[in-house]
Amino acid sequence: MKLLEERILKDGKVIGEDILKVDSFLNHQMDPKLFEAMAIEWKRLFEGKGINKILTIEASGIGIACVAGLVMGVPVVFAKKSRTSNTPEDSYSATVKSFTRGTVNDIYVSKKYLHPGDRVLIIDDFMATGEASKGLVEVVRASGAEVAGIGIAIEKAFQPGGDELRAMGIQVESLARIKEMSSENGILFV
Amino acid sequence: MKLLEERILKDGKVIGEDILKVDSFLNHQMDPKLFEAMAIEWKRLFEGKGINKILTIEASGIGIACVAGLVMGVPVVFAKKSRTSNTPEDSYSATVKSFTRGTVNDIYVSKKYLHPGDRVLIIDDFMATGEASKGLVEVVRASGAEVAGIGIAIEKAFQPGGDELRAMGIQVESLARIKEMSSENGILFV
Repeated sequence: MKLLEERILKDGKVIGEDILKVDSFLNHQMDPKLFEAMAIEWKRLFEGKGINKILTIEASGIGIACVAGLVMGVPVVFAKKSRTSNTPEDSYSATVKSFTRGTVNDIYVSKKYLHPGDRVLIIDDFMATGEASKGLVEVVRASGAEVAGIGIAIEKAFQPGGDELRAMGIQVESLARIKEMSSENGILFV
Repeated sequence: MKLLEERILKDGKVIGEDILKVDSFLNHQMDPKLFEAMAIEWKRLFEGKGINKILTIEASGIGIACVAGLVMGVPVVFAKKSRTSNTPEDSYSATVKSFTRGTVNDIYVSKKYLHPGDRVLIIDDFMATGEASKGLVEVVRASGAEVAGIGIAIEKAFQPGGDELRAMGIQVESLARIKEMSSENGILFV
């Protein structure tokens, strides 16, 4: 998606060879108008898939997913990283490793909000190794619902997550796919 | 706001005398169409205040704030509950107690995204003792920006936060204000 690629080139900052900072428009400060354009593109890409729910993960997926829910006319659920007051029997869970942060988190979705028959679009801001998306796929499948697709803002296509999820037969639509990046040579899209 | 009050009566669940569960439409599963109606109401209530930025706090404020940013045509910043890779010199911070969870968190906003001259609308899903909003006010003022107002979805008006912030001269607009609630007698709005 040209608009997002141009914005990454204009406002993104590559640190070393692996970190892309886009906190001026995507995951600290957020540009809702850009999110709307992204949502319209996902709506087009997933047309006819019967999506009736969006699932994302806190925190930085929530803004993008909510605007997508507004554009697509469906409710949005976000997976939580702590169980708060719910008991295990109340929720579906999965374990998610974060390679960026070096942490392991369990994620939780209340059983009230995913059901057999749901056709779920998973939305997130970034995909690299795909651990978060795989955790969300696990949660959706545990509920008996179906994964209708995955919409990602920025995919680090030089890491394996996106292709591994495509190999599972899932339609993954990343609006910007980075082939290579470095602080010296900048960003090259697929 | 009638639409929100009706939704709380229909789908909210009071536990004991202090907990209101609205996770079917506000803070786990989210209804973006409702958020849009809330945003339109805040836009009307804060008309002429020169708002150029929205500030919220992760995680459950983000969806509401993003839809509000879309409706009002301004960027949205969310305060983070962990500093990630930034150094203290990079960010404004404040300490926020959560009475519900019994925790104390520092919150952080990058200095890049709040400036003197900014007129900031603070948005959050709940207000009770007002600790989160007070922390956000502190962060806005530390940056030299001005608090143009506070928009809250649900205020527990039997707790002191809202009135304390109003006493500071801040326009606080809560779309549903609960006067009393209990699992036995239900919810009474102001």
